[in-house]
Amino acid sequence: MVDNTEELIARTPEEFQSRLGIAVRTHHEVVQIDRSRQRVAVQGNGGTRWESYDELVIATGSVPLVPAWPGVDSDGIFTVKTLADGRAIRDYIEQQHPRHAVVVGAGYIGLEMAENLRHWGIETTLLEQNGQVMPTMDADMAEFVCDALEGLGVRVHLQEEVVGFDVYRGRVQAVQTRHGSVPGDLVVLGLGVRPQTTLAQEAGIPLGVKNAIRVTPYLMTEVPHVWAVGDATQTLHQVTGLPSYVALATVANKQGRIAGMNLSGASIAFPGVLGTAITRVGSTEVARTGLTWAEASAAGIQAIETRIQAETKLGYFEDVSPMTVKIVAEIASGRILGGQIVGGSGSGKRIDTIATAVSAKMTATQVVDLDLAYAPPFSDVWDPVQIAARTLVSKI
Amino acid sequence: MVDNTEELIARTPEEFQSRLGIAVRTHHEVVQIDRSRQRVAVQGNGGTRWESYDELVIATGSVPLVPAWPGVDSDGIFTVKTLADGRAIRDYIEQQHPRHAVVVGAGYIGLEMAENLRHWGIETTLLEQNGQVMPTMDADMAEFVCDALEGLGVRVHLQEEVVGFDVYRGRVQAVQTRHGSVPGDLVVLGLGVRPQTTLAQEAGIPLGVKNAIRVTPYLMTEVPHVWAVGDATQTLHQVTGLPSYVALATVANKQGRIAGMNLSGASIAFPGVLGTAITRVGSTEVARTGLTWAEASAAGIQAIETRIQAETKLGYFEDVSPMTVKIVAEIASGRILGGQIVGGSGSGKRIDTIATAVSAKMTATQVVDLDLAYAPPFSDVWDPVQIAARTLVSKI
Repeated sequence: MVDNTEELIARTPEEFQSRLGIAVRTHHEVVQIDRSRQRVAVQGNGGTRWESYDELVIATGSVPLVPAWPGVDSDGIFTVKTLADGRAIRDYIEQQHPRHAVVVGAGYIGLEMAENLRHWGIETTLLEQNGQVMPTMDADMAEFVCDALEGLGVRVHLQEEVVGFDVYRGRVQAVQTRHGSVPGDLVVLGLGVRPQTTLAQEAGIPLGVKNAIRVTPYLMTEVPHVWAVGDATQTLHQVTGLPSYVALATVANKQGRIAGMNLSGASIAFPGVLGTAITRVGSTEVARTGLTWAEASAAGIQAIETRIQAETKLGYFEDVSPMTVKIVAEIASGRILGGQIVGGSGSGKRIDTIATAVSAKMTATQVVDLDLAYAPPFSDVWDPVQIAARTLVSKI
Repeated sequence: MVDNTEELIARTPEEFQSRLGIAVRTHHEVVQIDRSRQRVAVQGNGGTRWESYDELVIATGSVPLVPAWPGVDSDGIFTVKTLADGRAIRDYIEQQHPRHAVVVGAGYIGLEMAENLRHWGIETTLLEQNGQVMPTMDADMAEFVCDALEGLGVRVHLQEEVVGFDVYRGRVQAVQTRHGSVPGDLVVLGLGVRPQTTLAQEAGIPLGVKNAIRVTPYLMTEVPHVWAVGDATQTLHQVTGLPSYVALATVANKQGRIAGMNLSGASIAFPGVLGTAITRVGSTEVARTGLTWAEASAAGIQAIETRIQAETKLGYFEDVSPMTVKIVAEIASGRILGGQIVGGSGSGKRIDTIATAVSAKMTATQVVDLDLAYAPPFSDVWDPVQIAARTLVSKI
């Protein structure tokens, strides 16, 4: 993979300057936004000074959620957000040789950490407060993900609420939950993120869902000359039309591009999100888009779901693996609201077909009608996505 | 893979009878359709007799094209359509130990045969009349396919027109072309197929493109009580709206289902085709959908194309491979007309995202806006399909 974490840096400050003429100042922190005089207070190089702006873009991102659990500041407890966090965990493993790791939270970060801790040969327990892993998926689909985790030797504890930590000489020894104590000399918190918007809030820039910055589709805040993009902002869900908070690289990247073009005179609207995401647990691919059945129900939509079992290629191949596809649709219109996939190699990115169909407001029947690619090494004559849609049509 | 070719039979006549109550008669040939009396003449079991019908479905499929080249009937020259054809080639290889194989035609069948002959350890030359392999793709994309073939040790001769065969004692020895003689003691013809519609034609059922049977969107022929499906029929191209002939399993399978449902009282229209297809040459995946740039031009559409280089996953993975994506769009509307992909593992099925976008009549900008799945093992933050669309938008 990578010998040196420096290789993971996509662009250095020097490259920004030489290629794009953009001055990047690392280790400089904006501590105040003065809207009336259009300037920001910047702390760095040993002092604080004002810097003026014509247009300001807030891209302060998000920070990992860390509950105020007793002992949460102890050595051996980590969050995972920056490259430095990753280095810190690696260094801790190499120096302290932890034997029992506990990962708290079974979302994308929690799953990836649990898998990687197993690769280091460390006994790993995953604690999740909910009754399922992957809270962005429906419970039935999450069970397949749980199986994959257990297949890697991860112990999964569901409905396990953390209340604190056992600490000895400043270092974590165990995680205390409502049910007892789980030994762990390395703890990783994967509890999601919150938008980092204190600065915006103090400047009186209106916030929305989860304190994310409210922006127009053109990515302007509700304050003149101030824009905001990425994990710091609230966005619209394409299916429900409701404000939503989705902290994903794909969204941040697209918003950055659009804000940059709008600042240069364009007038491009960000179309909102479906929350499309993919991850891998061992060789099992896990993907989701749009609304789960639970989310549709919570949004008051009369939805129908179907879940089918298929295979990643025709059955006579030796490397065929199972693949489960769920599709959720609105009963009244037949419109596809979302989908979820768990399966072997080649399964996951099929979520893009569902995401495209959701964006195009296609019905299940229109998905059945799609002309998708078939050859024995890739799928059955009917792609699993279409088998799911066909099954759903027969149920409506 | 498979020990016995019998394992490749999806359903036996006995299963049709016991599970579905459908009488299947193999080795029975319909030799005449008597429309006025609604009956067919069936040859089999040593005699011919009439069998009446309320509704008739013609699913006579297609037959491989075999030009009337001198010597084409010699031993050692094969076409590939049925399981029996596959067995015959295998038996010939095992018994005759051919040393030089020549494959004529560089479409899907030709490519798959060339690869498999190399797996048998046989020197293989692929002859193609056109200036490129894979005539259903644009020439620039076909070059990547040609590289993949040559990487497997297949010798590729383009613009090579066959005129006949050298034959000794009834067995093929070489293929004669306009340029000379190519040694070959095994020859496989992969020149495409023609609809098998002599029976329909003799019954006065109207034919269309390439003598395929003309059908309504509901899959009725223009003659009462006679339906037709699959490789025997003409279909509409979803992009051009023009009659077209596409002999693919996906199309045949969907048409069979729709005709069956319509015969049972439903009223379902077949939506037409995009000609979406996928194949594999060694580890290189090759896929296409909709119109190529050449096809768009031929249809009189003012089109623009873009071709981008990307990778199948982030660059720090050891098993990353290159991936080339082309998108074709209409200049005036920006509407996506088609796409082509050649690349490593995980590339090919991304064609489904493009196929879905084409069916939904999406513009390149709408493809840029799609919320597709990202994680480092699957793609860059911008999926290659979106990078292609983004590049195309910047060119319009």
